[in-house]
This record gives sequence, C-alpha cells and structure tokens, in this order.
Amino acid sequence: MTAVDPMPSATKVPDLLARARDLVEPALRQAVTRLDDQTRLVASYHLGWCDEDGRPTTGSSGKAIRPGLTLLVTEAVCGTPDPGVPGGVAVELVHNFSLIHDDLMDRDSRRRHRRTVWAVWGDATAILVGDALACLADEVLAECGSPYAARAGHALAVATRELIRGQVLDVAFEQRDDVGLAECVDMAVGKTGSLLGASAELGAILAGADPATCEAFRRYGRELGLAFQLVDDLLGIWGTPEQTGKPVFSDLRAHKKTLPVVWSLEYGGTPGQELAAWLAETGDPSEDDLQHAAVLVERAGGREWAMAEAAERVRRAGRALYVGGVQPANREQLDQLAQFVAERQL
Amino acid sequence: MTAVDPMPSATKVPDLLARARDLVEPALRQAVTRLDDQTRLVASYHLGWCDEDGRPTTGSSGKAIRPGLTLLVTEAVCGTPDPGVPGGVAVELVHNFSLIHDDLMDRDSRRRHRRTVWAVWGDATAILVGDALACLADEVLAECGSPYAARAGHALAVATRELIRGQVLDVAFEQRDDVGLAECVDMAVGKTGSLLGASAELGAILAGADPATCEAFRRYGRELGLAFQLVDDLLGIWGTPEQTGKPVFSDLRAHKKTLPVVWSLEYGGTPGQELAAWLAETGDPSEDDLQHAAVLVERAGGREWAMAEAAERVRRAGRALYVGGVQPANREQLDQLAQFVAERQL
Repeated sequence: MTAVDPMPSATKVPDLLARARDLVEPALRQAVTRLDDQTRLVASYHLGWCDEDGRPTTGSSGKAIRPGLTLLVTEAVCGTPDPGVPGGVAVELVHNFSLIHDDLMDRDSRRRHRRTVWAVWGDATAILVGDALACLADEVLAECGSPYAARAGHALAVATRELIRGQVLDVAFEQRDDVGLAECVDMAVGKTGSLLGASAELGAILAGADPATCEAFRRYGRELGLAFQLVDDLLGIWGTPEQTGKPVFSDLRAHKKTLPVVWSLEYGGTPGQELAAWLAETGDPSEDDLQHAAVLVERAGGREWAMAEAAERVRRAGRALYVGGVQPANREQLDQLAQFVAERQL
Repeated sequence: MTAVDPMPSATKVPDLLARARDLVEPALRQAVTRLDDQTRLVASYHLGWCDEDGRPTTGSSGKAIRPGLTLLVTEAVCGTPDPGVPGGVAVELVHNFSLIHDDLMDRDSRRRHRRTVWAVWGDATAILVGDALACLADEVLAECGSPYAARAGHALAVATRELIRGQVLDVAFEQRDDVGLAECVDMAVGKTGSLLGASAELGAILAGADPATCEAFRRYGRELGLAFQLVDDLLGIWGTPEQTGKPVFSDLRAHKKTLPVVWSLEYGGTPGQELAAWLAETGDPSEDDLQHAAVLVERAGGREWAMAEAAERVRRAGRALYVGGVQPANREQLDQLAQFVAERQL
C-alpha cells in the first residue's frame, strides 16, 4: 500500500467521526428514499431523522462508528475517504438491520432514548424493515460502480452471517446457566467483531488495497469490535441512562450473559458464586437487587478484567496493522480511534 | 441468443422440476452446511430434510419451482443448465427466508403438513434463520466464480426488496377494509412476481444472455408469478389440506385479502356485498360460516375471474418471451412450465 500524508493529528476522534457522518449521511438518506413509504418512515425514525409521524427531528442519529471506521481506513489506504462512502452506507445499513431485529428478539423497548421500532409499529414491521435495510445494503454496494464492489459485497455477506451467528448464540445463552467465557467471547466476536471487522475491511477493499492489507484491517476491526463490546457490557451495568439510552442495569435485569458477568461466574470466587445464585433467582428484581448484583460483579473482578481486556484488544488491533505492514503514518488515526472506543464514557 | 436443441418435448413438467431439484439440491445442502449447528438444524427441518431432532426424513421438500425456472432458462439460453445452479440455490434460499419470516408474521403454524419454524423454536429463531438464509444466498452467488455473479447478485437484491415491499403491503392490508384490486395485484406482483421474475432473470444472466434477453425472461417470470399467486389464492379457498398442507379455508379464516376475494368485493354485486359484511364480522367463524363465505366468492364471480386472469397471465408470460426475441425452440418448455403452474391441482 502507498503511504500518504496522515490527516492532521490534532484532529480529535469525535471530529473524525462527525466528518465521516457528514460524508456518509447524504448517501445513506439517498439509499433510504428507495424504500416504500411505510418502510422509509420507519427506517427514518429508527435512524433518528424523524419522529413517529415523519416530522423531521434534529436529534442524534448515533455515533456512526462503523462508517467512520470505513472512511478512516479508505483514507489511510488511498488518501481520500470518498471511495469508501458506499461501504460506509452498507455497514451502517447492516448495523441498523441487526439493531431492529435484535431489539425485537430481546424485547428491548428503548434505544437512543426513544421507543424501538417493534414497540411503536409491532413485530411484523420490525422484521420487514430490518429485512429491507439488509437488502438495501447489498443494492448500494452492487450499484456503486467501484471495480471492487463485488469483493466488498462478498466480505459484507460473510460478516453479516457471522453477525447473525453471534445473535443465535446470544439468544441460546439466555436459556442456559453454564455459558463459559470462551463461548461468550466467541459470541461477542460474532455480534460485534464481525461487522466492525467488515467496516474496516470494506474501507480497504474499496480503496483498492491488496488482499493481505484488507485482511490486516479486518483483524484490526475485529479486535476493536471486541474492545467496543467489552465497554458496551460495562456500560450495560454501570452506565447511566444518559450514556446508554436504556434504563440503568438493563443487561442485569435481562439476566444477560455479558462478558464481565461470565468472567465473574467462571473466575470470580465467592462473589462469583453469589452472583450465580442471584442470576438463578426468578421474578422481577428491585433496584436494590440490581445494585447488589453490580457490586458482586465488581467484587468478583469482572469489571477490572473487562477494562483490562478492552485495553488488550486495543493493543492487538494496533498490532494487526503493524504485522500487516500498514505504514506508521497511516496507523495513527486508527490507533486513536481504537483508543477512543475503549475509553468512551467510562 | 443462440438457438439450441430443445429438451425432448415428451418430458413432462414435473419431471423437469424433479431434474432441476436433483441438480440444485446437492449445492443447496452444501450451502446449508456452512451455517452454525443450530441454524443448520432449523434450516434443514424447514427444507424438509430432517425432523425437529435432526433425524433425516424422506418427505417432500417442496416443488422447487423457482430453481426449476432458473435452470430451464439457463438451458434455454446456453444449452446446459449447469451455470444456473448457483442462481437456483440463491433464489430457493431467498424464497425460504421469506417463507420463514412470513409464517411468523402471519402466525401460520403449519406449512407442508408440518409445524412452522416459529411454532417449533420460537420467534427469535425464526427471525435469525430467515436472516441467515437471505445472507447465504448472497454468499453463494458471490462465490460461484461466474463472470456474471455480480450482476446476478444485484438482480437478486432488487427482487428481494420488491418481495419485502409486497409483504409490507400484505401486512398493511390486513388492517384495512378498503383494499382495491389494483393495490392487491401490486402486492402479489411484489410477493410472488418479483422472485419468480428474478428466478428466470438469474437463469439468463448466469447463462451470459444479453440485457434485453434477461429482461424478457424477467417479465416472463413475473407474469408466471402472478398466475402462480392467483392459483395459490384459489387453493387457499378451495384447496384441500392434502393439496396445500394447511387447514381448509385457511386464507378466509385469516380474513386475507386474496385476489379472488378483493375482486369479489369490488365487482361482485350483491354476493360481493354479503362477502364484505361477512368479512366485517369478528370472532372465530365455524366451518359452515367459512363454507358460506367460499360460496359467496364463487357467486360473486371471484373464482371464475381468478381462473381466467391466471390463464391471461400465462399468455402474457409467453408473449414476453416472443417479444424478447427468444427462439420458439427455446420457448417450448417454458410455455409448458407456465401452463403447468396455472393448472396445478385445480
């Protein structure tokens, strides 16, 4: 790959992500206009562009970490983010397809401080709008005119199926009380690592990088994805509703086998055993009960482990780029992004 | 396109479909092995290959009309069905993705004389297995090695989104009592015409046909699809459980706005008005009530219209091939297939 001038390193990660959002959003809005009226309304609501009746809103439409990653990689490889835009649109569409279906399966009724799609329009609409967004991602890539579109489409399909496999495990784990850490990490690699991996990989593919470089970026994205999930799991226990857009302790309330919880059950000694007993209880826990469970995860060491593991995954992400021969000048922004992901709001 | 020797015209359509199934099924089974264990079990059950516990079964796995269409078109264009096989696998996967999601949305608990996926494994599994099959279709095409794979993938994505649009309308119509015939036909074109259109189109694309020929086959498949849907709607009222795999009168019981019903409401005079009054009643109808409603559709002329319209669509399908310049020798089997679809089991 060719070394190019890095972006000014004074640029902060939130600014980089905002710039990516500005580049991707017009193309994303353009793609969404292709949907039928009903599906377009629901998709636009979910993406934060309008309220339930279609009136435009000015609220946040999410951090757009995936398209941000795609564009940063494209720019690192070929000096301009532009060829990565269809890739950014496609990964954002796949991400939102999975959010809409996951919210339904998990019966989560709030996301980004608003009611979720199934909670507003019902199950059938949530299924169909998710399906439509996944399909639209394929169309956007197939029509983008890049000589690398077919390769990008294939990489996205493989990652999407891996994402679905992660959710299959997630759903299955809720019915089990013997989930080990290795299985849980495997699930997180599927649910979060795969699409962040593809986000970086698509950025490289659409920039015309050679296969070895694309693979290095894919591994970088997967590691960053696992760091992201660890932080997400920590926020799911200790994050405020302002940070997460969900009720406090929402993952504990749902008895979710998140990484800090599973680590605590497996390696957390006596507090871990107490946590297992707490999870085995049925009925609706009180706020005090939930607070107590969070303390158990902390005493068991699950919180500390998850923070250290997130840092380790950031290190591995950087190493994937180094081993893949990505030039130092091109790694700087990407290392900063990985760092930002691991430290966000904790 | 090149004229090739037609297949022996003594060959019956069921034999042609069986031959297509024999060509596509090994590749379909190979594709399904890629899925994770749980998803593979559920997909294999849905496809009729095993029971709920994974024990192999010898039951019917459906008529495979879509892959049959793909392979017949490929053979008509280039003399051998082989290049069409990945297309046949992909359309069958997309078809089954939509069946699994539709059964869930419609809360249909039986299909092909067996319990549906959501009825056995629950909603989340039905969503995820459907998602996985849609994704697998993309992978199969992307990896097939054909120089036309990207074009085929794009055509399939466009058709899949049209299919989803049809289901969006279907779901919306169940909440309305003023659905007109034109809307209802539009819905059927989406739900059934789009994928049968793509089945034929992919056969032509993968055979290397020029764009005008591919478009002629797409139009042929869409018309055939509408004929297919009309027959399906007739079977949904007058078909036996042996024919349909569903309880008798299942569409009437669900107050479905099928084509013969909507035609009767719009053009059926007094019996049509009686039918409207019947549909407006709530509560669980008895078998006698359902029998009465079926008689009203017949008296209103809805049954006769649907049969005539199916024949008209078959005629238009043939005409699309003629106008598209497809050679008579290559049209013969395809005309027979269209005829077979319109006459099946009535």
